[in-house]
Amino acid sequence: MAENRTELVDLGEFGLIERIEKGVKTNGESTVKGIGDDAAVIDSGDHYTLISTDMLMEGIHFDLSYVPLTHLGYKAVAVNVSDIAAMNGVPTQITVSIGLSNRFSLEAIDALYAGINAACEAYKVDLVGGDTTSSTSGLVISITAIGTVSKDKITYRSGAKLNDILCVSGDLGAAYMGLQVLEREKQVFLTNPEMQPQLEKYDYIVQRQLKAEARMDIVHELKELGILPTSMIDISDGLGSELLHLSKASGLGLQIFEDKLPIDKQTYDTGFELTLDSTTAALNGGEDYELLFTISQTDFEKVKNHQDIHLIGFMHEKEKGCKMATKGDNLVDITAQGWSHLKA
Amino acid sequence: MAENRTELVDLGEFGLIERIEKGVKTNGESTVKGIGDDAAVIDSGDHYTLISTDMLMEGIHFDLSYVPLTHLGYKAVAVNVSDIAAMNGVPTQITVSIGLSNRFSLEAIDALYAGINAACEAYKVDLVGGDTTSSTSGLVISITAIGTVSKDKITYRSGAKLNDILCVSGDLGAAYMGLQVLEREKQVFLTNPEMQPQLEKYDYIVQRQLKAEARMDIVHELKELGILPTSMIDISDGLGSELLHLSKASGLGLQIFEDKLPIDKQTYDTGFELTLDSTTAALNGGEDYELLFTISQTDFEKVKNHQDIHLIGFMHEKEKGCKMATKGDNLVDITAQGWSHLKA
Repeated sequence: MAENRTELVDLGEFGLIERIEKGVKTNGESTVKGIGDDAAVIDSGDHYTLISTDMLMEGIHFDLSYVPLTHLGYKAVAVNVSDIAAMNGVPTQITVSIGLSNRFSLEAIDALYAGINAACEAYKVDLVGGDTTSSTSGLVISITAIGTVSKDKITYRSGAKLNDILCVSGDLGAAYMGLQVLEREKQVFLTNPEMQPQLEKYDYIVQRQLKAEARMDIVHELKELGILPTSMIDISDGLGSELLHLSKASGLGLQIFEDKLPIDKQTYDTGFELTLDSTTAALNGGEDYELLFTISQTDFEKVKNHQDIHLIGFMHEKEKGCKMATKGDNLVDITAQGWSHLKA
Repeated sequence: MAENRTELVDLGEFGLIERIEKGVKTNGESTVKGIGDDAAVIDSGDHYTLISTDMLMEGIHFDLSYVPLTHLGYKAVAVNVSDIAAMNGVPTQITVSIGLSNRFSLEAIDALYAGINAACEAYKVDLVGGDTTSSTSGLVISITAIGTVSKDKITYRSGAKLNDILCVSGDLGAAYMGLQVLEREKQVFLTNPEMQPQLEKYDYIVQRQLKAEARMDIVHELKELGILPTSMIDISDGLGSELLHLSKASGLGLQIFEDKLPIDKQTYDTGFELTLDSTTAALNGGEDYELLFTISQTDFEKVKNHQDIHLIGFMHEKEKGCKMATKGDNLVDITAQGWSHLKA
């Protein structure tokens, strides 16, 4: 196409995003925050409007051979709501654009929208627009979520302070482990179509993969507890990657403890069965859609016995880097693997 | 997929949109207008926030064998800005999601974003977010535009009143005719790659196809003239289709005059050369991105001599239907062809 050809694979997804960001100038007076957080922030007078968008491609983000369309529709909404939650906001509207080929029937589209509408009801958002178009190959879903947040309640990735406590909601690594089980069953099915999938003992982790939920309940609960997180991000690419985002944006280092990572027993047991390390799944698996946030030490008493909020570490000086204290008492660097779509 | 299989082609794009719309409930107190106009309308306190979204797919909406990526990026922004203009609003931000395969180089992506950034500058909008992902086949671009409008200045499709004057900006059918020329040159090139494309005499119509502009200038000019259109829609699918939308939303019939349709000489001449009727191109060609709007008769004097606003007809009783008086003085029904992506 051009005389100099640089391959995208040499840049990577994060490199590409950084390059795009560098070319962008924001001048509009209503733009408070552009690229670089979970959602863009727009000044709407007495409050902020939040905008977040995601694109899901068949063959990259989902495999219709084991993902029911209703679940897919639900998840597509949930992952966008999760970005609004990460700004401590409340979602209000979404737009849904879909590209589809004539291999899809009307009944299939109805199933997809049944999931989308169910998620709209669960998260109290209105579907207000979108686009439908034909696709030359697979299904494409692009969703934009709109939300709202008080100006004094917004949480950015950048607000963590020295000695703040690192918290995560729920548990980690389950969605990744569920995906491994689904992939294994698919291979078994392809080899022998007579075989019925054996998923009963994996019900929790499979559900975590297929039916993601945004943690709006945590946003509301923190408010009730009188806690304003100092920083927040949602865990979509994996805890490791998100910790590095938070560290970079806040200009601080951090330390977490491997034995504090919340990992469900089913995730752990399945990891053992599949010879996959559950700590690695928690750090790099992704698609957890839990919230990672920091709170001031003065809020410690309010959460220390909370069933669903786990204290996994603390912020320290930038020079100390981003570290994990392992169960064997070693201090190792946290690295981001993220997704490597562009290498596919 | 399901036991009953209904083909999407039997429903058509408009039928599919209607079906999706029927399944949607809007409950949120801030949702003023959901699906069914050029943009969704959200109450933001002292003003309305507008949201519009479009998805462009390679092989459906554009052909990279003759569409330069910079032009494509510019157009992708412009078509969304056009939807905000149609609500009498001003665009403020956009998000851009792209799906791309490793057949694209970094230089190609830079060219695409050069066009996107140029359009952001031209329309004074900030690029505030998006998503980049891998695609298994072609390029996918999904853009969401955010805009703002005073509560007393918003124009819906539904506001046209009896005897209001129908107006269009610019000229019609040129983008469609430009596309026919580009398609012809592509076929010539495929047959004989030695041939150089002969596009000089088609410069205007080719530019109308490749470098669409949103008519923000008309929005600002109407304001300066002290005109608040009673209804407005942008012409993306073709004048015929948009007239029917406006008629249906406003609950009225309408009549236009064939000899009043603004058609550029180059469009007309090229139509003659290619044996394509230029009136049909104006009615059904699409991609003009001009504005179709109605004004009260009391505003007639303000626009009657305007160079770039053309009075093409008037609103009448619903029972009289949607008609065009032809040059031969026949009264014919206006029909919508729209796009037929789903039949592809």
